[in-house]
Amino acid sequence: MAGTSPANTDRVIEKEQGLVMPHPLDSFFAPASIALIGASRDHEKIPGRLLSMLRKNEYPGKIYPVNPNYTDIDGLACYKSIADIGAPIDLAVIIIPARAVLPALEQCAAAGVKNAVIISSGFAEEGGDSAAMQDAIAALARRTGMRISGPNAEGFFSQVPRVAATFSPAVDVKPGVVPLVATTRRIGIVAQSGGIGFAYYHRARALGVAVSYVVSAGNESDLGAGEFLDYLVQDSSTDVILLFIEGIRDVDKFLAAAERAAEVKKPVIVTKVGRSGAGRRAAASHTASMAGWSAAYDAVFARYGFIVSNDLDEALTIAALLASNPLPKGERVAVVTVSGGAGIWGADAVALQGLQVPELSEPIQAVIRQLMPSYGTARNPIDVTAQGVTSGGLQKSVDVLTASDEVDGILVVLSLSSEVRKPFKEEELTPVLLTQHKPVVFYSYTVPSDFARRELAKSGAVVLTGLAHVGVAMRHLVDYASFKLPFPADAARLSARDLSPHLKSPVLSEADSKSLLRTAGIALPDEVLVRDKGELDEAVARVGFPLAMKIQSPEIAHKSEVGGVRVDITTKGEAFLAFEALLDNARKHRPDAIIQGVLVGPMAKRGIEIIVGTMTDETFGPMVMVGLGGITTELFRDVVYRPAPVGVQEASAMLAGLKAAPLLKGFRGAAKADVMALSQLIADISLLAARHANEITEIELNPVLVHSEGQGLTIVDALVVGRR
Amino acid sequence: MAGTSPANTDRVIEKEQGLVMPHPLDSFFAPASIALIGASRDHEKIPGRLLSMLRKNEYPGKIYPVNPNYTDIDGLACYKSIADIGAPIDLAVIIIPARAVLPALEQCAAAGVKNAVIISSGFAEEGGDSAAMQDAIAALARRTGMRISGPNAEGFFSQVPRVAATFSPAVDVKPGVVPLVATTRRIGIVAQSGGIGFAYYHRARALGVAVSYVVSAGNESDLGAGEFLDYLVQDSSTDVILLFIEGIRDVDKFLAAAERAAEVKKPVIVTKVGRSGAGRRAAASHTASMAGWSAAYDAVFARYGFIVSNDLDEALTIAALLASNPLPKGERVAVVTVSGGAGIWGADAVALQGLQVPELSEPIQAVIRQLMPSYGTARNPIDVTAQGVTSGGLQKSVDVLTASDEVDGILVVLSLSSEVRKPFKEEELTPVLLTQHKPVVFYSYTVPSDFARRELAKSGAVVLTGLAHVGVAMRHLVDYASFKLPFPADAARLSARDLSPHLKSPVLSEADSKSLLRTAGIALPDEVLVRDKGELDEAVARVGFPLAMKIQSPEIAHKSEVGGVRVDITTKGEAFLAFEALLDNARKHRPDAIIQGVLVGPMAKRGIEIIVGTMTDETFGPMVMVGLGGITTELFRDVVYRPAPVGVQEASAMLAGLKAAPLLKGFRGAAKADVMALSQLIADISLLAARHANEITEIELNPVLVHSEGQGLTIVDALVVGRR
Repeated sequence: MAGTSPANTDRVIEKEQGLVMPHPLDSFFAPASIALIGASRDHEKIPGRLLSMLRKNEYPGKIYPVNPNYTDIDGLACYKSIADIGAPIDLAVIIIPARAVLPALEQCAAAGVKNAVIISSGFAEEGGDSAAMQDAIAALARRTGMRISGPNAEGFFSQVPRVAATFSPAVDVKPGVVPLVATTRRIGIVAQSGGIGFAYYHRARALGVAVSYVVSAGNESDLGAGEFLDYLVQDSSTDVILLFIEGIRDVDKFLAAAERAAEVKKPVIVTKVGRSGAGRRAAASHTASMAGWSAAYDAVFARYGFIVSNDLDEALTIAALLASNPLPKGERVAVVTVSGGAGIWGADAVALQGLQVPELSEPIQAVIRQLMPSYGTARNPIDVTAQGVTSGGLQKSVDVLTASDEVDGILVVLSLSSEVRKPFKEEELTPVLLTQHKPVVFYSYTVPSDFARRELAKSGAVVLTGLAHVGVAMRHLVDYASFKLPFPADAARLSARDLSPHLKSPVLSEADSKSLLRTAGIALPDEVLVRDKGELDEAVARVGFPLAMKIQSPEIAHKSEVGGVRVDITTKGEAFLAFEALLDNARKHRPDAIIQGVLVGPMAKRGIEIIVGTMTDETFGPMVMVGLGGITTELFRDVVYRPAPVGVQEASAMLAGLKAAPLLKGFRGAAKADVMALSQLIADISLLAARHANEITEIELNPVLVHSEGQGLTIVDALVVGRR
Repeated sequence: MAGTSPANTDRVIEKEQGLVMPHPLDSFFAPASIALIGASRDHEKIPGRLLSMLRKNEYPGKIYPVNPNYTDIDGLACYKSIADIGAPIDLAVIIIPARAVLPALEQCAAAGVKNAVIISSGFAEEGGDSAAMQDAIAALARRTGMRISGPNAEGFFSQVPRVAATFSPAVDVKPGVVPLVATTRRIGIVAQSGGIGFAYYHRARALGVAVSYVVSAGNESDLGAGEFLDYLVQDSSTDVILLFIEGIRDVDKFLAAAERAAEVKKPVIVTKVGRSGAGRRAAASHTASMAGWSAAYDAVFARYGFIVSNDLDEALTIAALLASNPLPKGERVAVVTVSGGAGIWGADAVALQGLQVPELSEPIQAVIRQLMPSYGTARNPIDVTAQGVTSGGLQKSVDVLTASDEVDGILVVLSLSSEVRKPFKEEELTPVLLTQHKPVVFYSYTVPSDFARRELAKSGAVVLTGLAHVGVAMRHLVDYASFKLPFPADAARLSARDLSPHLKSPVLSEADSKSLLRTAGIALPDEVLVRDKGELDEAVARVGFPLAMKIQSPEIAHKSEVGGVRVDITTKGEAFLAFEALLDNARKHRPDAIIQGVLVGPMAKRGIEIIVGTMTDETFGPMVMVGLGGITTELFRDVVYRPAPVGVQEASAMLAGLKAAPLLKGFRGAAKADVMALSQLIADISLLAARHANEITEIELNPVLVHSEGQGLTIVDALVVGRR
């Protein structure tokens, strides 16, 4: 509960005073007036629920129901059309048949309505004519400047200004139920699926995690998840952001918002679905989005320090920790428990995530031991036993460990099922949590009672119930605490060159690929393309023994498979025989292929086999990848991606992210590899791919042999694919 | 809910009729009379709670409180001592100070008490004198035949015979609360931690999963987790078993019970804690158990088809699926949803676990499409939309898919937060689930209401809330359905040999190790140990070029590190130079080492580098392991263990369990490896290790080069370690 933030009302004042920049979506999220187009008296159906949700949540602005069939609804005057309202309207909420939506929007625009949310379905997700209607909506938004969310959206909920512009039952207000609120900091939720967005909200409320906004993006004809993310990043009532996406459409806005979030250090927890084949198939028809290639999404998330979670409870556990705790300064965790078995499990759960559970110093153990029975233990995990709750050992352990510099976080593992017994007294726990400098996390192995949740909420604590999720969340907090936005790529590393003369065919042979790379400024071994046997002598003299010879053809991608490679050639005689054999093999296996000749080059020094490449993602454009070469990359899928370009620092971080990273650091007494040279190569190739994204779709350097520290690397083979 | 089992009362009748064998622990779990030693009138403290729990749960047998300070407690006559009771006693529950426990047990034994549960703490978990008291308890049990559970136990709860011999608040009965029961099949819980055992129970009840028994094992002076497992395996009121262990003490009983569970196909879900360093440290002091080496535990679990889960909710999700569904016949899943985003997530969650989410055939899609709006989709995931609930699309989808042979399981993803609306009608859902031949799993993305849980429970359905857990659980069901207990090892494969002449030193050199292995019947290349340069000529002539030469000393484990290996020697001159160099290097690096000579052998054919080994686990004895060789094994920890010995079939299953398995099957167009020969080697080595467990603690064959199918393998290097 440490670190509170001003509520939205403060922000409105700040904005009025010019202290904070107003945001174009302020009138969307906190409208002074709402027109409800398609309003209904039937509370059981969606149109009727929209009105009742607004009123139950005590929306403070003006509501104008619009429906030609009524003169009034629930005591409010009902208008025949938008034009009849005759007052400024910040937001129109539209729930009418799909075919009537566009005319209604035209009327809205004519009446000067600033924003609209289209709840109606039956647009791009159906394809055909319906998709065309959505295109027309997008065009209208561009033409008129009116901002439009949806169609096929579930609307939004703004907690502080009390705007429930949604039919979601999750925002229903039940008489007599006092909401559980444990955190002063708030999470904001952006979801392309309304069902999931409001499920986050529903589960957050059950935990007592305060929420600032929930917004469902739907088909995103105009307003998209990227722009909503931008709003929450700049919003001072939002401290943590939960993002659920199927596929990003407003890519530039999304990337700008992501960068801003990293800069202001506002955590974003993201769930990206449509990762499986079936998931992608469904995403295409659901909100008509292309779920895309999830590795590219993960690469973008990694760049901006987004916390990726693909489970609802896990994502909320992370959000709950962030909303109720400061960030940890290190990875040492104390586990405090009342049950031995649960304490062992707690220690395992955090250790599984690479966190430390250090044995405590004797002075600290001595203090704790005084307040527990002899069969407890104070080593860490600290088992004060069930008796330790009543004898004060539990609270004392938390007190001592909060103040100690021996641990960076505390995990309290206990049973909170009782409807009457309190393991902590509010007056003892609250002061500790008010001044906490490290996370204190509460996990109950039994199902917590409503009583216990409310008791702990008084001190600002959220009770969590998934131990594995807690371990994962504590790990994420440690990583997020140390995350820094990487330095941008250094564009001065490579001079701008015209590469178009090299890109005559879409797929380049190795020799042509290497020639392009040399022009671009990438260092490669000196090699000679021998077109005719007569040139071989001179080539051999220039390269020197031992040498490697490889058949060259843009049509032969896998040279080994056609007997197109000879290595370790140490005599002229061998070289001549090899030349003939390579040409013969190529003619035999691929009689129709255009043969450019044989590439003669030196044998590379030994090194660690690495693959470096770039490719073009349909959503995010050029991406760079690195992996351990040989069979390992494919078998263990040990590759790391980032959006191109990357700087040297981010390239190093990519290498550190490989499972095979220890290999580069001098594994089993081997020499350290030249990680610096490799990082530089990754950065340079990524810059090249980004700069020539219009011409080059793919670069593959495979293998790159990375030599010992200071000895550089050798690009053994290369492939460049141009845009067709 | 398909597949019910007779309740325990049926079993008692069956036992009486001699249809079922009685079990020695019947009088422990269903005692006709209980003496409560240390009974108290104070319901707030543990002794008083024991009595009140027994009575609140309506224990039908006789209760005899024993406490010299009272003449009666809560209307029951209270006895001064056990001897005073003068009636047969099946079970004594003991909750008195530690030092008084042993005398009380002596009195129990004298009075003919059959079983005892010691709740009191302060024994082996404290060490020293307290540990000695526990040893005396164990001795008493052996001497008298009285069966003793604990000390430091939380007791047990038998649901059907209504025996709440525990102070756990989880078994408290709240007036007016009707328990939620969704399943007719029951789970039985064995836990070495009472806190966790009863937490499982508490969470199972919240889900509506019926429970047969919960038993906490505590310090296991006599009765251990293995024997309790045995009871639940043979118990006909238990259909699924949940096991929580820190470390197994009654290993033989545990293994026998595990084998029996596999034979009768009763699923066991196991959580093993103490996997981390801190966890092991805590386990040692908690129930005074040694948590051991978790890889050995996992190997044992794998042999018997145990389902390993290290998260409470995940374990219960698996248990809930098993208790409410038949096993699936394949891995094709239909995801049915009312929210597009949630459906995509559901498809991702099962696909992540390697399950299939196939697009449905057009006839099935056509049937479903009739009952949903045009913006839904019937492809799979099937999004009937929110409207599809009222229009019947949801129920219809479940009906059609249950009957279809296109999928093997159904995942229903929906929001069950409403307190009033039912997504399914009991009269429509129940008949489908009563006759179901495949799992139908219900997941709510919002927090389910008590109303919804109870409504679905009427049809036998459990509502789950963790999507990732559901995916994992569905995978486990598929795997468990196809699990078969492997054939035992074929002891006739290797003849019994006396190996003691080979085991003169604890660590054998390569040459000595290979000599031992040859004697044992393992095929190895023909190699010659050359002790003197004069013998080299003959050795070279016998082996033939090209050859490899390796220094031999029991004190030099890593020959490469002392310049002790030469390969690819093709001339006599090279051989002589190598011989001298190897001896020189050894003398230089390790002047004090005893040098046996140089091992001269043929160069091995190419092959996939594999490591095969055995080691001795302190709990389970000899274990066999296999891994991909070279750096990969260590870097990616790609190794598989099993208890030794294994048969060829289980050895093949080990290989299939490697991440690198595709490499053996002909990766990237390479030839298939001789998996048969490798399986046979694993089986033989495991048999050797098991048979000579008293003499050999470790065998390491590294590398083994596995050649193409039919070409066998070559053991390149070998190390045998004897018992010191």
